[in-house]
Amino acid sequence: MLKDCDWIVTQDSQRRVLRNASVRIHDGSIEEVGEISPVAKDDVIDCNRKVLIPGLINTHTHLSMTLFRGSADDLALSEWLEKKIWPLESGLDGAMCYHGALLGALEMTRTGTTCFVDQYYYMEDVAKAVAESGLRALLSVGLFDKSDKPATVRGREHTLKFLNYVREMKNPLISFAVGPHAPYTCDRDTLLWARAIAEKEKALVNIHIAETGGEQGKFESEGKGRVVEYLDRIGFLCDRVLAAHSVWLTEREVKLYGKRGVRVAHCPVSNMKLANGGTAPVPEMWDAGVPVGLGTDGPSSNNGLDMFDTMKMTALIHKNVRRDPTIMNSQRVFDMATLDGARCIGHEKDLGSVEIGKRADLVLLDLRDPNLIPVHAKETLVSDLVYSASGFNVDTTIVEGKPLMVNRRFVNLNQEEISEGVMSSIARLFPQ
Amino acid sequence: MLKDCDWIVTQDSQRRVLRNASVRIHDGSIEEVGEISPVAKDDVIDCNRKVLIPGLINTHTHLSMTLFRGSADDLALSEWLEKKIWPLESGLDGAMCYHGALLGALEMTRTGTTCFVDQYYYMEDVAKAVAESGLRALLSVGLFDKSDKPATVRGREHTLKFLNYVREMKNPLISFAVGPHAPYTCDRDTLLWARAIAEKEKALVNIHIAETGGEQGKFESEGKGRVVEYLDRIGFLCDRVLAAHSVWLTEREVKLYGKRGVRVAHCPVSNMKLANGGTAPVPEMWDAGVPVGLGTDGPSSNNGLDMFDTMKMTALIHKNVRRDPTIMNSQRVFDMATLDGARCIGHEKDLGSVEIGKRADLVLLDLRDPNLIPVHAKETLVSDLVYSASGFNVDTTIVEGKPLMVNRRFVNLNQEEISEGVMSSIARLFPQ
Repeated sequence: MLKDCDWIVTQDSQRRVLRNASVRIHDGSIEEVGEISPVAKDDVIDCNRKVLIPGLINTHTHLSMTLFRGSADDLALSEWLEKKIWPLESGLDGAMCYHGALLGALEMTRTGTTCFVDQYYYMEDVAKAVAESGLRALLSVGLFDKSDKPATVRGREHTLKFLNYVREMKNPLISFAVGPHAPYTCDRDTLLWARAIAEKEKALVNIHIAETGGEQGKFESEGKGRVVEYLDRIGFLCDRVLAAHSVWLTEREVKLYGKRGVRVAHCPVSNMKLANGGTAPVPEMWDAGVPVGLGTDGPSSNNGLDMFDTMKMTALIHKNVRRDPTIMNSQRVFDMATLDGARCIGHEKDLGSVEIGKRADLVLLDLRDPNLIPVHAKETLVSDLVYSASGFNVDTTIVEGKPLMVNRRFVNLNQEEISEGVMSSIARLFPQ
Repeated sequence: MLKDCDWIVTQDSQRRVLRNASVRIHDGSIEEVGEISPVAKDDVIDCNRKVLIPGLINTHTHLSMTLFRGSADDLALSEWLEKKIWPLESGLDGAMCYHGALLGALEMTRTGTTCFVDQYYYMEDVAKAVAESGLRALLSVGLFDKSDKPATVRGREHTLKFLNYVREMKNPLISFAVGPHAPYTCDRDTLLWARAIAEKEKALVNIHIAETGGEQGKFESEGKGRVVEYLDRIGFLCDRVLAAHSVWLTEREVKLYGKRGVRVAHCPVSNMKLANGGTAPVPEMWDAGVPVGLGTDGPSSNNGLDMFDTMKMTALIHKNVRRDPTIMNSQRVFDMATLDGARCIGHEKDLGSVEIGKRADLVLLDLRDPNLIPVHAKETLVSDLVYSASGFNVDTTIVEGKPLMVNRRFVNLNQEEISEGVMSSIARLFPQ
């Protein structure tokens, strides 16, 4: 039981903020919320001077890229990819991705993210790390067309093998997603194959769409026109598609997203850092009924996994671009990191708010930290979370009712061991 | 003595990063840097698994505005000022500003800022709080013209009274600055009066210039033309002027800054949050030889005082606006928060780097925190500081050789008392 929280930001349909309230958890889900008292069987966490919020949902990342964090910054996109990231990735192995994913999981636990969507290599190893961490995740193998047909076929086989692997894990917190990398790295056949698998398995299609102006230019030079219109023409767009980035969309394309039920993982920090120059048309997406969640993107294009940082950046970049301080208010941004993130991954019924019957993915922030003083009123608390808070104000992280960090101490993960695993991976990956 | 730092980011003229090095402090200044051993008289702080950096310099804030933090967000600038901030400010008193300043000092100590430039009301009370905190500061009373002449005269008298107050404090860490608020709130006489006082007292002129498009519009409608050209015409610009914001400058005005020796406090978070829509032309300022430091601005337009957050935002917004990921690299940004900040306040000889003879304003970050793993090489460490680090990774803050926080425990300030003082101030300021 989470007892006597100073505040609970419920994110229920009325966006109620409760004062001096508690939460009882039973069997991984939220059983009671409000003025309740502990009974003998309850494990009690004292939440005095703390604010309880729903666990944050990171809708787009590449966890194992923690290994590259800080190693290739301030470069043009092509140089970043071709001279740094791709050569490094070609040297990866499963053990490295495992250690990198553990580090990412540690950082997410530390900073209040309880659920995330990932795409990368060696996903069996990533899944193993995620299972150890106790976090909730939707995991996909990155699927690329290769110049030789057999390699392309092997890619698809790898996706199916991973599907099987996840199925056999029987871990209710880990789900399979299909991961066609992008429209410019997967042809029509691969995209439709991915969509078909997703339909069959009731899974998410986790894909990058319209991330850069260059991608759109490539499509035009190949005579395929607008990227999103092309994807619709071939019958790819549907309500299983979670489209990361989606920066370079026309109004017509935004409406196509709305019509087909596409969801978006908005990654403003990564977009700004790689200097795409664009900002996803999120207000127009809202008008078109498109669910928009937030993503950090991988830790080598951010370079962190702190969703509080991403929330603040989201509010600021849209205000700046539109010259309108009211356009992206703190409640809308907090919705993106919680409820809308849950909608993006098809978990709107069980994640994203502190309500009876939802899974107990919960986060506590310490209101004694100087940047969270003062709290003026329940009406301004969400503003404090978006503009003042840091992930490092999080002191307790709970997933499916299980504490993963309590009072800033990790329960499952061993920080020292993870650090050593990462350093040994890096010693192999970056030969001196 | 700071013993066995994993790394020292010296910020010396070669931007050397030292591995496994120590710093000896004597009488508030840095006596030795490198491979040195403790002797009997040394107080030793073990810096294993830590990185030592120069204390960060926040060149523009209004510390006591911590009291308003989170109370008035997502509003248009005019509504924010006229309906929220100004009415609140009219209810302030010295005790409130004292408590607000203590809270701001607590947050700065927590997040690695050792020196700052402030402008506000009740600055005697702010100075008292700063002296208790042990931070270094340049403090100015906000000077505004009033509709009645006697009030304008009283404002000037208040500045002179504060000058005397600071002089009598005899605190080597606290300096007086003149604070004419802005060209649109101070007339020619007041501006030139402020400049003359600054010349006489060898003090800084701390002023807001060209913050909004509206300010420029007002000047044009009054037939005064471009703001900065006007300031030059009346003979105000000189090398004592620290111009906060400076967003709306033409190339010619940037060159005027360079020619007159004006320095700039760049405040990107505040500019984005208030949705000015512009970004200060920092690369052009560099070309013109203008020193540019970073400022958080007040905690009700940010809403924090974490300079790491401001560093990251600075890099990202310029990359995004220029569509060039190379334009604002991490070293340039880190320079702004250290060496260039020191130049902005006329302390280039004694602050901003870890070098023998400089004042011992030093900060340690804990490299065991998950977001600071891995450190790849000395060449990438500054990238980690700008893109990955949070102020909450700071675990030790030292000013003038005196530890203000060690291993995340405050030495001078009492967190609980400060929180109570702020809450009681707010109870008076925001009547229910």
